[in-house]
Amino acid sequence: MARPITLFTGQWADLPFEEVAKLASGWGYDGLEIACWGDHLDPWRWDEPGYVEGKLALLEKYNLKVYAISNHLKGQAVCDDPIDQRHRDILPDVVWGDGNPEGVRQRAAEEMKNTARLAASLGVKTVIGFTGSSIWKYVAMFPPVSQEAIDAGYQDFADRWNPILDVFDEVGVRFAHEVHPSEIAYDYYTTVRALEAIGHREAFGLNWDPSHMVWQEIDPVGFLWDFKDRIYHVDCKDTKMRAKDGRSGRLGSHLAWADGRRGWDFISTGHGDVPWEASFRMLNQIGYDGPISVEWEDAGMDRLIGAPEALEFVRRLAFDAPSAAFDAAFSSK
Amino acid sequence: MARPITLFTGQWADLPFEEVAKLASGWGYDGLEIACWGDHLDPWRWDEPGYVEGKLALLEKYNLKVYAISNHLKGQAVCDDPIDQRHRDILPDVVWGDGNPEGVRQRAAEEMKNTARLAASLGVKTVIGFTGSSIWKYVAMFPPVSQEAIDAGYQDFADRWNPILDVFDEVGVRFAHEVHPSEIAYDYYTTVRALEAIGHREAFGLNWDPSHMVWQEIDPVGFLWDFKDRIYHVDCKDTKMRAKDGRSGRLGSHLAWADGRRGWDFISTGHGDVPWEASFRMLNQIGYDGPISVEWEDAGMDRLIGAPEALEFVRRLAFDAPSAAFDAAFSSK
Amino acid sequence: MARPITLFTGQWADLPFEEVAKLASGWGYDGLEIACWGDHLDPWRWDEPGYVEGKLALLEKYNLKVYAISNHLKGQAVCDDPIDQRHRDILPDVVWGDGNPEGVRQRAAEEMKNTARLAASLGVKTVIGFTGSSIWKYVAMFPPVSQEAIDAGYQDFADRWNPILDVFDEVGVRFAHEVHPSEIAYDYYTTVRALEAIGHREAFGLNWDPSHMVWQEIDPVGFLWDFKDRIYHVDCKDTKMRAKDGRSGRLGSHLAWADGRRGWDFISTGHGDVPWEASFRMLNQIGYDGPISVEWEDAGMDRLIGAPEALEFVRRLAFDAPSAAFDAAFSSK
Amino acid sequence: MARPITLFTGQWADLPFEEVAKLASGWGYDGLEIACWGDHLDPWRWDEPGYVEGKLALLEKYNLKVYAISNHLKGQAVCDDPIDQRHRDILPDVVWGDGNPEGVRQRAAEEMKNTARLAASLGVKTVIGFTGSSIWKYVAMFPPVSQEAIDAGYQDFADRWNPILDVFDEVGVRFAHEVHPSEIAYDYYTTVRALEAIGHREAFGLNWDPSHMVWQEIDPVGFLWDFKDRIYHVDCKDTKMRAKDGRSGRLGSHLAWADGRRGWDFISTGHGDVPWEASFRMLNQIGYDGPISVEWEDAGMDRLIGAPEALEFVRRLAFDAPSAAFDAAFSSK
Amino acid sequence: MARPITLFTGQWADLPFEEVAKLASGWGYDGLEIACWGDHLDPWRWDEPGYVEGKLALLEKYNLKVYAISNHLKGQAVCDDPIDQRHRDILPDVVWGDGNPEGVRQRAAEEMKNTARLAASLGVKTVIGFTGSSIWKYVAMFPPVSQEAIDAGYQDFADRWNPILDVFDEVGVRFAHEVHPSEIAYDYYTTVRALEAIGHREAFGLNWDPSHMVWQEIDPVGFLWDFKDRIYHVDCKDTKMRAKDGRSGRLGSHLAWADGRRGWDFISTGHGDVPWEASFRMLNQIGYDGPISVEWEDAGMDRLIGAPEALEFVRRLAFDAPSAAFDAAFSSK
Amino acid sequence: MARPITLFTGQWADLPFEEVAKLASGWGYDGLEIACWGDHLDPWRWDEPGYVEGKLALLEKYNLKVYAISNHLKGQAVCDDPIDQRHRDILPDVVWGDGNPEGVRQRAAEEMKNTARLAASLGVKTVIGFTGSSIWKYVAMFPPVSQEAIDAGYQDFADRWNPILDVFDEVGVRFAHEVHPSEIAYDYYTTVRALEAIGHREAFGLNWDPSHMVWQEIDPVGFLWDFKDRIYHVDCKDTKMRAKDGRSGRLGSHLAWADGRRGWDFISTGHGDVPWEASFRMLNQIGYDGPISVEWEDAGMDRLIGAPEALEFVRRLAFDAPSAAFDAAFSSK
Repeated sequence: MARPITLFTGQWADLPFEEVAKLASGWGYDGLEIACWGDHLDPWRWDEPGYVEGKLALLEKYNLKVYAISNHLKGQAVCDDPIDQRHRDILPDVVWGDGNPEGVRQRAAEEMKNTARLAASLGVKTVIGFTGSSIWKYVAMFPPVSQEAIDAGYQDFADRWNPILDVFDEVGVRFAHEVHPSEIAYDYYTTVRALEAIGHREAFGLNWDPSHMVWQEIDPVGFLWDFKDRIYHVDCKDTKMRAKDGRSGRLGSHLAWADGRRGWDFISTGHGDVPWEASFRMLNQIGYDGPISVEWEDAGMDRLIGAPEALEFVRRLAFDAPSAAFDAAFSSK
Repeated sequence: MARPITLFTGQWADLPFEEVAKLASGWGYDGLEIACWGDHLDPWRWDEPGYVEGKLALLEKYNLKVYAISNHLKGQAVCDDPIDQRHRDILPDVVWGDGNPEGVRQRAAEEMKNTARLAASLGVKTVIGFTGSSIWKYVAMFPPVSQEAIDAGYQDFADRWNPILDVFDEVGVRFAHEVHPSEIAYDYYTTVRALEAIGHREAFGLNWDPSHMVWQEIDPVGFLWDFKDRIYHVDCKDTKMRAKDGRSGRLGSHLAWADGRRGWDFISTGHGDVPWEASFRMLNQIGYDGPISVEWEDAGMDRLIGAPEALEFVRRLAFDAPSAAFDAAFSSK
Repeated sequence: MARPITLFTGQWADLPFEEVAKLASGWGYDGLEIACWGDHLDPWRWDEPGYVEGKLALLEKYNLKVYAISNHLKGQAVCDDPIDQRHRDILPDVVWGDGNPEGVRQRAAEEMKNTARLAASLGVKTVIGFTGSSIWKYVAMFPPVSQEAIDAGYQDFADRWNPILDVFDEVGVRFAHEVHPSEIAYDYYTTVRALEAIGHREAFGLNWDPSHMVWQEIDPVGFLWDFKDRIYHVDCKDTKMRAKDGRSGRLGSHLAWADGRRGWDFISTGHGDVPWEASFRMLNQIGYDGPISVEWEDAGMDRLIGAPEALEFVRRLAFDAPSAAFDAAFSSK
Repeated sequence: MARPITLFTGQWADLPFEEVAKLASGWGYDGLEIACWGDHLDPWRWDEPGYVEGKLALLEKYNLKVYAISNHLKGQAVCDDPIDQRHRDILPDVVWGDGNPEGVRQRAAEEMKNTARLAASLGVKTVIGFTGSSIWKYVAMFPPVSQEAIDAGYQDFADRWNPILDVFDEVGVRFAHEVHPSEIAYDYYTTVRALEAIGHREAFGLNWDPSHMVWQEIDPVGFLWDFKDRIYHVDCKDTKMRAKDGRSGRLGSHLAWADGRRGWDFISTGHGDVPWEASFRMLNQIGYDGPISVEWEDAGMDRLIGAPEALEFVRRLAFDAPSAAFDAAFSSK
Repeated sequence: MARPITLFTGQWADLPFEEVAKLASGWGYDGLEIACWGDHLDPWRWDEPGYVEGKLALLEKYNLKVYAISNHLKGQAVCDDPIDQRHRDILPDVVWGDGNPEGVRQRAAEEMKNTARLAASLGVKTVIGFTGSSIWKYVAMFPPVSQEAIDAGYQDFADRWNPILDVFDEVGVRFAHEVHPSEIAYDYYTTVRALEAIGHREAFGLNWDPSHMVWQEIDPVGFLWDFKDRIYHVDCKDTKMRAKDGRSGRLGSHLAWADGRRGWDFISTGHGDVPWEASFRMLNQIGYDGPISVEWEDAGMDRLIGAPEALEFVRRLAFDAPSAAFDAAFSSK
Repeated sequence: MARPITLFTGQWADLPFEEVAKLASGWGYDGLEIACWGDHLDPWRWDEPGYVEGKLALLEKYNLKVYAISNHLKGQAVCDDPIDQRHRDILPDVVWGDGNPEGVRQRAAEEMKNTARLAASLGVKTVIGFTGSSIWKYVAMFPPVSQEAIDAGYQDFADRWNPILDVFDEVGVRFAHEVHPSEIAYDYYTTVRALEAIGHREAFGLNWDPSHMVWQEIDPVGFLWDFKDRIYHVDCKDTKMRAKDGRSGRLGSHLAWADGRRGWDFISTGHGDVPWEASFRMLNQIGYDGPISVEWEDAGMDRLIGAPEALEFVRRLAFDAPSAAFDAAFSSK
C-alpha cells in the first residue's frame, strides 16, 4: 500500500477544525497532522473527559487518521530570547500570562509536556514543533559574540528541553524538532551540535522540512541520509529561489512573503526547488515508514487551489520502492 | 475571476480570420490579440462603415473578446534602415509603394496612426507593435560607431514616433512596444534609453515578451518590476536555450528556426526557459490587469497541437493572488 | 502518423514473452524491441521451422510490431577480457560451454551471427547490442597503459566483429552498437575511434541511448547530429544526477542501483536529466524514421507503474516536425 | 596619479596607534582610515586642545594621510535592540554607563555627533560606521512579524539618526553607512528602504564593503551603479564562499570564523570571490574619487603577512581609467 | 626555444610606426603584427622601390621580426552592405573614392590583393583580416529573411574573395580571416559554412581570436581542434563577461566600451574569461608553430600599462610541450 | 615556522636519485618523499649494512629531509586482478618472478612489509602507496555484478593487507593509502567501506591527493574534515577540468595524457581546479602537521619549469594559522 499522506492544519487554524477535516477528506487526504492551536487541539485539555474521544470521532466521521500532532508556536517560546510582541501575537493567554519572559518560557514548557500527554491519549507517537533559541539573534556574528555565549545557548536548550523530554519518555512519545531558522537547530551543523547537546537521546528527533534547507544551500537528501536514525516526521513545504539578479538577497530584505523581490519564498508544494523525488526515494532507502505530511504555505496562491494540487503531486512521486531490482530481470539468461 | 487569456493571430494570418476565431474559441481561448495583416484587420479601413462592426460581430459569434490589436510589421518599417527585400516581403502595397525608403517609412507611420484609430473604433486601449530602428545594424560595434551615431538613432526614433503617439493620445489608445532585437529597445538598457528619448510619455509603453530576453540574459521578472508603470501588454512566447556545447552560438549562426544547432530557439509556450510562474506572480504584484496573450511560435511543432496545449499551460499558472496571506492562519492562537 | 513507440523486453525477460506482449499491448505500446534471452528470442533457433512464425503470430495476436531485436548479453562476450563469473551469470550454456575465455568469445560471436540471421527471418533490419571490449579495464589509465595496448584493443574489436558484420551484410541487417561503459565505444571520442577501426562500414552503426551519456557529460543532442548517418536505433533510458554534495562520486562507489549515495542512477524515462524534447527534435532534423524504444530501468520504482507512464511521456514529446514553418504565416502581408 | 590606498585600523586597535601607523607606512600605504576605538581616536576629545594636532603630527611623521574615520562600534548601539553583553564587550564606559538600553543608545548617539565634530577638526569629510537596527532580529520572519513592526523599525532608525545627521550637516561631514547584516540596511532593498526613510538626505550615504554582499548574492558592481550618488567610501574586505557541499549553510551555523565548515568566511583581500577588478572599473565609471581602504579580516591568516599582500593586490587592480578609448587608435586610417 | 610573441599594431596606429616599434621592443616583444593603416604599412606602395626595405630596416633596428601583417579595415569593406559613414571613417581616400558602395567594395578588394603582394615582398606568409558580410545585418532574423537570402550572402562572399585569393595563391601567401561578428564567419557554424562556400581552398584560413567567441558561448579550445588545419594565426585579445544580473545583455545595449553595464567587454589580455592555458596547450597539440600575437584592447585601462603586462602573461603560459611524457618516469621500475 | 614542503620523486625515477636531490635542493624544497623504485629506494635492502646510512647522508649533503616514503607500484600488485602486462611494465623482477598472478601478489605483499621496515630504518613514520583492488574492474556495473562479489572484494583487501599492516604496527610505521581510481578506495564511499573492512585499524590511513577527487566530483575539503583522523599524508597533484563541450567525457576516452579532448587532465600544481587554499586552511583546522608534498604530473609542460613553480605556489598558500583571531582586535574598546 502507498504511504499515508496527511495535511498539516497549522495554516488552516483560522477555520474550525471540522471544516478543515471536511476539506481534507474531500480532497482525498488520508489524515491530518493536527495543530495545537485555534480550536484544532488544546494540550491543556489532554485529560479532560471526552475531549480526545470527540476529536477521534470527528476524524473517523471524515475517514481521516492522525499520525502526529504539532505545537510549533508554544515550542518556540521555550528557549526564545527576547520574548516580545511577536510571541504575544501567537501565544494563548494561558502561556503568555503577564508576559514576563521567564514565566512565558516556563508556561510554554508546561504546554509542551501536556502536548506529549495529549499525543499519548490520541494514540499518536510523534509531536512536531520548534524549540526556540536564545542564540539565534547572534546569527550575524556582529557585534562579536564569544564562543562561550554560543556554548551557553546550546546548554540553555538542553536545560530547558530535557525535563520536557522526560515527560515524552514517560508517555512513550517522541519529539520531532523542525530544523528552521530562529531555532536551536536551523541547518546541518547546528543540528549536529543540538543533538550532541541533548546527548542524542531518543526522545528528540527531527521533522524534515526541506523548505528551510533549500535557500540555505543545505542538501535535503543528504540530510536524510546523515540523520537517518532521527527522522521522525516529514513535512512537505516547498521553496522557490529567485533567479539570480544581484539585487534579491538571501536574507529576504524584510520584505513580505510573495514579494517577488525576495531572494526566495515559500511556494505551493511541487512548484519549488526541493528535489522531491530524490527525497522520497531516500526516505524509502532509510526505511522511513511514517506519514508524508503536506505543509502548505504560499502567500501568492489560493490555498483552496493549492492544497488538493499538492496532494496529487505528492501522491504521484512518493511511491514505494519495488520489491525486486531490475537486474534480476536483465540478467536472466 | 481568472485573467482572460487570448491568442495572438499574427502566426495564423495565412488562415482566414474566421477560421482562426473558430479554432481559438474551440480550444477555449477568451479572446484574440488581432494582427493587422492578412485579412484579420486592415488599419486603413478604420473608418469604413460596417468594417469594425463586422469584426466585432464575428468575435461575438465565437464568444471571443478583443483587448488589444497588433501591428508589428508596419511599425517595423517606421524607423528601419536599410529598407530592403525583407520589408518588401512583409509590407502591403499601400505602404511599400515605390519602395523608396523614406516614403516607405512615412507611409508605415501613417498606417500606425490609423492603427490607433482602428483600436479606438474597436473599443481597444492598446496597440502592440515594433518601432524599427536605424541603429540596430550597429549592434556589433564594428566598424567603430560613434556615440553621436547612436544618439542620433534614439533621436530619429523620437522624431518619427512622437507624431504617431500624438494620434494615440488623441484617440485615447496606448502603444505597447515589444522589446525585441532589431528594434530601438531590445534589452534592458536600450529600453531605459528609449523611454528617455520619448520623454517617458504615457502613450508609449511596453509589450512584455520574455522570449527575447531569455537568450540575451535579461531577467524577465526583474524587467516587470523595474518597468512596472509601462507594462501595457503581455505576450507569452517561449525560448529554449541549447545546452552548452561550445559550438552553438548565441547569435544563431544564420541557421533557420528549429535547427538544433542554433544556440536558442523559439518554442511552444511552456516548453522553454522562461520563468513563467515567477513572471505571472510578479504581474500580480505590479497590478497588471490586462489579458495574457499566447504568442505561439515553434518551427518544430505543429501549431494545431501546440496552441491548445499552451492555453492549458498558461491557464494553470496564471492564477490570481489570494485575498489573504497564510500568516493570518498560522498565527491564530 | 506519429512514430511507433516500442518497449524493450530486456528488463522483462524473467516473465514469459507472451505476458510481456500482453502487458505492453495493454499499455498501448506499438511494438517490442525483443531481447534474445529468457524465452523471448533464441538466435540459435533462427532456422527452426515454425519458430519465427510462432513469434510473429504472437505479436500479431497482441497487435504489436517488431522493428528491431537486441542481443546485448552475448555481444558483450565477443571482445571482453577478462571473462569471469559475471559472464557466467548472463550467458546460456551453449555460449559459456567449458568457460574457457577464448571459446566463450567465439561462441558468442557465433550467436551474434545467428542473431543477424534471426532478424532477417523476422523481417527486421536492425540488431541492437554490445560489443564488449578488451581495453575497457584500462579506463583508469593506471597502472600506466601503453598507446600500443590501446591501439591493439581497437584492432581486436575490428578483428572479432568484421566477420560477424560480414554475416549482417549477407542477410541485409545492420548492427546498432549501444554506446556504453564497458564497451569498445563508450563516449564520443571512443565512438569516433571505433568507427574508424571498422572502416566506417555501413553494417555497423549506433543505438543511441542517452542515459550513459548524461553522467559522462556527453551531450546526447550533439551526438545525434555528429553521428547522424550512424544512428540506427533509439533507446529511451534515463539518468538522474545526484545533486552536487562533494561525496557522491561519478564512478558510483560500487554502490547498488537505487542507492541515493550514488552520483547518478538510471531512472524511469522522463524522471531524469536527459534533454528528451531537444533530442526528439534533433531526431526529426536528422531524418531518423525508426522506432522510439523505451528501455525502462529504475531500481527504485515498480516497473508496472513506470512502463505505462514512460509511454505516455514519450508519446507526448516525440511528435513529428510540422510541414510548414511559422514564418510563412507571420510574414503574410 | 593613482588613487590613495588606506588601511582601516579597526582590526589593529589592540596595537598602539603609532605602531599601526609605522607598519602601514612601512608597507607603503598612503594613509589610514582611523578607527574611533582603542587609542586610535577618541571622539569625546574632539575639542581637547592639542589632541587633533597630535594625531595629525603623528600621521605626518609616517607620511600618511587621513581621508576618513570610522566608528562602527558606537554607531551599532544607536538603534540596536536588544542591547546585551555583546555591546558591553565593545563599548567604552562613557557610552555603556549603567547599561540601561535606552541610555546606552542615547550616549552612543552623542558619541556619533562627536565623531562628526572630530572628523571636521581633522579635516576629514567622511565618517564610516554602522547604524544598528531594532528590526534585524526579525530577519527569519518567525515568529510572524507584522508589516507595522517592520515599518516602525525604519522609522526608529530615522528618528534616532536624523538628529545625528543634523550635526554632520552643521560641520560639513557626511556619514557613510556600511551595508551589513545586523544593520538597518544590510542588502539591496533594505538600502533602498533606509534611504527613503531618511528622505535621501545628503548627509547619509554608503560605505561600499562588498564582503557582506557576496554571500547574500548581492552584486557589488551593480550596487555601485544603482547607488552611485551615495557611494561615500570604499572598504576592501573580501569573502570566500565554501564550495557547495550541501552541509555548509549560508547562515554560518554559529561556527567561528575560519572554521572550514562555514558556508562562507571573510578572507584576505584578493583571496575571495569579490569581483574586484570589475568593481574598481565601475568606481572609475561613477566618478568615485575617494580613497580605497583595505579592511583586512581573515581569521585564518597572519595579518602581518596579509596586510602588505592586500596592498599590492589592490594597487595592481585599482588603476585609473585611460584618457582616450582605443577605438581612436584602431580607426585611424 | 619559446614561441615568438608579437604585438598587433592596429590599436597603436595613431602613433608613428617607429614609436610603436620602440615601445614594443623595449617591453620585450619578439616582433610585430603590422597593421596596414596609419603610417604603419601601405599596401598600395608594395612595389615602390625602397619602401619594403625601409620597413624591414626599421624592424631590424629594434630587433623585431614580422611574421604576419593585418588589414582588417579594408577587408571589411569587400563584402559589407550597407557601406556607410562607419566605413568612411576607417577607409583611406584611395578606397573610399566617391563613396559609391560598389566602387568602395571593388577598391577595397584591390587593396587586399596588394596586401598579399606586400606580404610577399616583406617575406611574410600570412595576412590577417576581415571579410565583411552582406548578410550580417540579418542576424536578428527579423524581418523574416529567406534561406535564399542567406545562401546568396555566402555566395557573394565567395564571388568577391575568390579573385583576391587567386592573387594570394600567386604570391604564396595565405589569408587568415578573423572570426568576428559583422563578418561572413562569426561563430562556429558560420565558419563551417564559409569554408564550404570557398571550397576549403587552402589560401583561406582563420585568425583565431577567442575574445569574440567567449561572449557568444563558442568554446575557443574546441574551435582550435575542429579547424586545426585552418588555424593560420593567433591573436590574443581577451573578453570579460559581466556577472549575471539580469539587466546586462549579451548584445551590448549600444553602450560604449568600458561601460560596466555592458554584458561583456574587451579587456587586457589575461584579465578576462578566455581559457588561455588550455588554448595554448591545444595549439601545441595541433602543431601550430606560428607567432602568438597580443591584440591589446581595453577601453578601461592605459595601454602603456597593459601591453607589457600582457606580454608577461602570455610568455608565462604559452610554453612549449615537453619532449617526453611523465609516465615514462613514473613507470621506471 | 612554515610547513616543510617536499617533492615526490616518483615522476623523477628515470633520473639518478642524487640528481633529483640536487635539483630539489636547488629549487628550495625542504625534503623528498622518496619513491621505492628506480635507484631511489629499494625496500629489499632495508637491512643491508650501510644502505640506509648512505641515503641519509646523501639527503644531508643536499640539506633535505625525508618525512615519508612511497611504494605505489608494488602496493598496486597486492590485490589487483587481473595481473597483466601493465604490471609487468612497472614491477621489478623480484616481484614479478614467473608472472603467476597469485605469486606476484604475494611477493608484492612481501615488498610492502619490507617497505615498512625500510621506513623505520630511515626514521620515517609514513609509507604512502596504493592497495590495488580485485573489484575495480566492476566499476561500470556491467555485466551485472552481485553484491556478494563486491563484498568479497573488500574482504580480499582486508585479508591481504592485514598481515602487511601487522608488520607496520611492529615497526611503528603507518600506511597512507592514496585514494585513487583502480584502488580499493577511490572515492568517498569506497573509503568509508575500506576503512570499515580493515576495522579502522590505526596502521591504515590516507594519503590525501585531491587530483583524483576533482574530476569525480568529490570535495577535497570536506574529505579532509570527514576523515580528519586518518589523514596521514598530503600529496599536491592538480587536475584541470575541460570546459563543458558535450564531447569530452569524464572517463577520458582512452586518450593519452595532455590530449586536449580529454574531459580532465593532471596539470602542474596550481594550474588546475583543486581548491588549494581552502584545503590548506582545512589542514590547519584538523591539525595536520606533516609535510606538504608536491606530486608533479603534467604531460603538457616541462617538469624542470613546473617543479620550482609549484614549490613557489604551495609555499605562498600553505601558510600557518595565526595565533589569535582578528575579533580580538576589532572588539578592543
